[in-house]
Amino acid sequence: MSTLTVQLGERSYPIHIGRGLLHRAGEFLKERGIAQKSPLLIVSDEHTASFYLATLESNLQKSGYKTESFVVKPGETSKSLAVFEQVITAAIQGGLDRHSAVIALGGGVVGDLAGFVAASYMRGVKFVQIPTTILAHDSSVGGKVGINHPLAKNMIGAFHQPELVLYDVDTLSTLPPREVSAGLAEMIKHGLIWDANFAYWCRDHAADLLALDAAALEYGLEKGCSVKAEVVSRDERENDLRAILNLGHTIGHAIEAIAGYGEFLHGEAISIGMVGSALLGVKLGADPALVEVTRDMLSSLRLPTSLPAHLDTDRLLEAMMHDKKFKEGSITFVVPRSIGRVEVVKDIPVSDIRQVIEQLKEEA
Amino acid sequence: MSTLTVQLGERSYPIHIGRGLLHRAGEFLKERGIAQKSPLLIVSDEHTASFYLATLESNLQKSGYKTESFVVKPGETSKSLAVFEQVITAAIQGGLDRHSAVIALGGGVVGDLAGFVAASYMRGVKFVQIPTTILAHDSSVGGKVGINHPLAKNMIGAFHQPELVLYDVDTLSTLPPREVSAGLAEMIKHGLIWDANFAYWCRDHAADLLALDAAALEYGLEKGCSVKAEVVSRDERENDLRAILNLGHTIGHAIEAIAGYGEFLHGEAISIGMVGSALLGVKLGADPALVEVTRDMLSSLRLPTSLPAHLDTDRLLEAMMHDKKFKEGSITFVVPRSIGRVEVVKDIPVSDIRQVIEQLKEEA
Ligand SMILES: NC(=O)c1ccc[n+]([C@@H]2O[C@H](COP(=O)([O-])OP(=O)(O)OC[C@H]3O[C@@H](n4cnc5c(N)ncnc54)[C@H](O)[C@@H]3O)[C@@H](O)[C@H]2O)c1
Ligand SMILES: NC(=O)c1ccc[n+]([C@@H]2O[C@H](COP(=O)([O-])OP(=O)(O)OC[C@H]3O[C@@H](n4cnc5c(N)ncnc54)[C@H](O)[C@@H]3O)[C@@H](O)[C@H]2O)c1
Ligand SMILES: [Zn+2]
Ligand SMILES: [Zn+2]
Repeated sequence: MSTLTVQLGERSYPIHIGRGLLHRAGEFLKERGIAQKSPLLIVSDEHTASFYLATLESNLQKSGYKTESFVVKPGETSKSLAVFEQVITAAIQGGLDRHSAVIALGGGVVGDLAGFVAASYMRGVKFVQIPTTILAHDSSVGGKVGINHPLAKNMIGAFHQPELVLYDVDTLSTLPPREVSAGLAEMIKHGLIWDANFAYWCRDHAADLLALDAAALEYGLEKGCSVKAEVVSRDERENDLRAILNLGHTIGHAIEAIAGYGEFLHGEAISIGMVGSALLGVKLGADPALVEVTRDMLSSLRLPTSLPAHLDTDRLLEAMMHDKKFKEGSITFVVPRSIGRVEVVKDIPVSDIRQVIEQLKEEA
Repeated sequence: MSTLTVQLGERSYPIHIGRGLLHRAGEFLKERGIAQKSPLLIVSDEHTASFYLATLESNLQKSGYKTESFVVKPGETSKSLAVFEQVITAAIQGGLDRHSAVIALGGGVVGDLAGFVAASYMRGVKFVQIPTTILAHDSSVGGKVGINHPLAKNMIGAFHQPELVLYDVDTLSTLPPREVSAGLAEMIKHGLIWDANFAYWCRDHAADLLALDAAALEYGLEKGCSVKAEVVSRDERENDLRAILNLGHTIGHAIEAIAGYGEFLHGEAISIGMVGSALLGVKLGADPALVEVTRDMLSSLRLPTSLPAHLDTDRLLEAMMHDKKFKEGSITFVVPRSIGRVEVVKDIPVSDIRQVIEQLKEEA
């Protein structure tokens, strides 16, 4: 087991990564001082619940905890105010009090939803993350929690740090292959923005990672979490540095916004976005090899690196304009200078982005 | 104008109290560095909007701010998830960004609702309170914001400190007399828990306060806010000391929960609750005169001091058991020892509370 501490002063918390941790959940909760008298609420989705809820409940109960659970439908639609209200109702009916904790057992959807419940139930109770996707190594560091509004994603939320993250790599064995690759996109992103060696390591160990080899996952998740933790520790409230975590996300979000439902997973969309950022980086002076190396890294993880022609360039550009990163008339972009090094560049002309999008389509 | 600073480290903020401040709102917002490029959202209710919204908007616009507004129905029912969602929608449609501020123009209802919007819109934007009720001197200090769940009041919320509170005592001139008295109940509560002289001052200036004399209001609100600010500064997250602010609230909330809709305002209910607390104080050893002095103070402010016989004792006790202050089998009560001095007492036997309720009815 590896343990990493996210350094946030009095809000610091540990991330444990390793095998078999689900069977030791009660032990870790006690270690973090989570009260046994007050009921816990476990939030999961139908997939994760079917695989892991019973194990978690029985371990927690054996450790002397009272548990309640609430299972939501899988997928982004559960990050809604309506489901949020249902979870709050479950918390009230389950008798959760100010000393209770809410536990997210699942991917980023369950983490964001349960985290916002924890942030706002009785004005805030403790929160524990038990991520079961690779992508959730990203969402479990940083304290961003929240739900969607019909008009915009992640519009309603809070910063609410967990007490503890418990990453049992054994739970990743049931992940569908597309979800594996999509999660690896965020993992390698952490290399691309901060640590070239780690980005090359991901490429070189792609086969192990795709095969869900426990040792490779433990190392990769620990590295990925470390990079994010480092960035977040220096900028908890997203004033500045934290923006670099958005590498590939401006284009990625636009793709998600206009593609047909289910056509791209988030990780797939940002994979294409990261290639786009590399193209922009070259336009702004980086070594032209940057594009090929980036493409190669992402393909090794079975991720898409070009845009299907049917996605309309104008609609993509329009979607970017509506994005939060579009401020006062200019587009801000995270641009790579080389593998492992990025810069936040303001005032990128729309014409440059248009060219990049066209280039992303040519290679399809 | 008096200015008071709520001391909360980097979250410290000023409360300005005086006449004509609504006409100077833009000036104060600028002074606190609230961005002019990003639109503001003013939230008010139909009553406060009809009197004061146009004045506020025109002043802010004159000062170079863009304003959007959203008007809710008056009353507690607007502190719901459904109305919360409507306000968030208005914020999105109004183009509010991360640098925007949400302004509450109204009483505690609008303050709590708009404050929770500010706390959660894009994970938190700036918040400005312009309270228009006397009661709101209480809700505008402390940072508690939130909405109700059908099963329990104030169940969903956050701690989110305002940038600035602007208390224009001129806006209080349109308050209905019952709301005036109800607000004064929280004002004198701040004397009863912390400052005997202030409690006596409220009694001695009851006529001025009830007549909405500007000088008396300015002094009373400043004192009331100071006491609350002092308590909150020492205990921002309600771990301990802050509990004394609940004087009269355990019984008060139970009255509100079981009385017919509209029978008691919050301030009226806690007025009866504070007499109940005095009765309990005497039972636990305080000078028996405490009850008469408390009653006299509250009646001078035209507040009720006894319970109508039709409120069932068993149902009141049951409502208290469901209250948040009922923890692990025992009732915790804020009990006065003398005017201006209270203690938080755990494990009060239910039989004592029953006697107090019966006594509160006898005097009706
Ligand atoms: N808070 C943050 O900082 C942050 C960062 C990145 C992403 N996110 C959010 O995360 C969400 C995406 O997260 P995600 O990709 O984990 O999606 P997800 O939670 O929807 O999980 C993806 C799918 O895998 C299933 N699943 C999860 N774990 C499984 C397992 N162990 N075995 C089998 N199936 C499993 C789920 O049921 C779901 O169908 C988005 O809503 C995004 O906004 C948040
Ligand atoms: N956040 C906190 O710390 C805190 C503390 C105490 C109370 N509260 C909350 O405050 C709420 C009660 O506040 P309130 O008593 O101010 O109620 P309120 O906001 O409902 O106002 C009372 C009534 O007076 C009207 N009104 C307000 N200002 C007026 C004016 N200047 N002229 C004419 N009419 C006016 C309103 O439209 C409403 O009908 C409750 O929801 C309570 O939970 C919060
Ligand atoms: Zn992402
Ligand atoms: Zn009150």
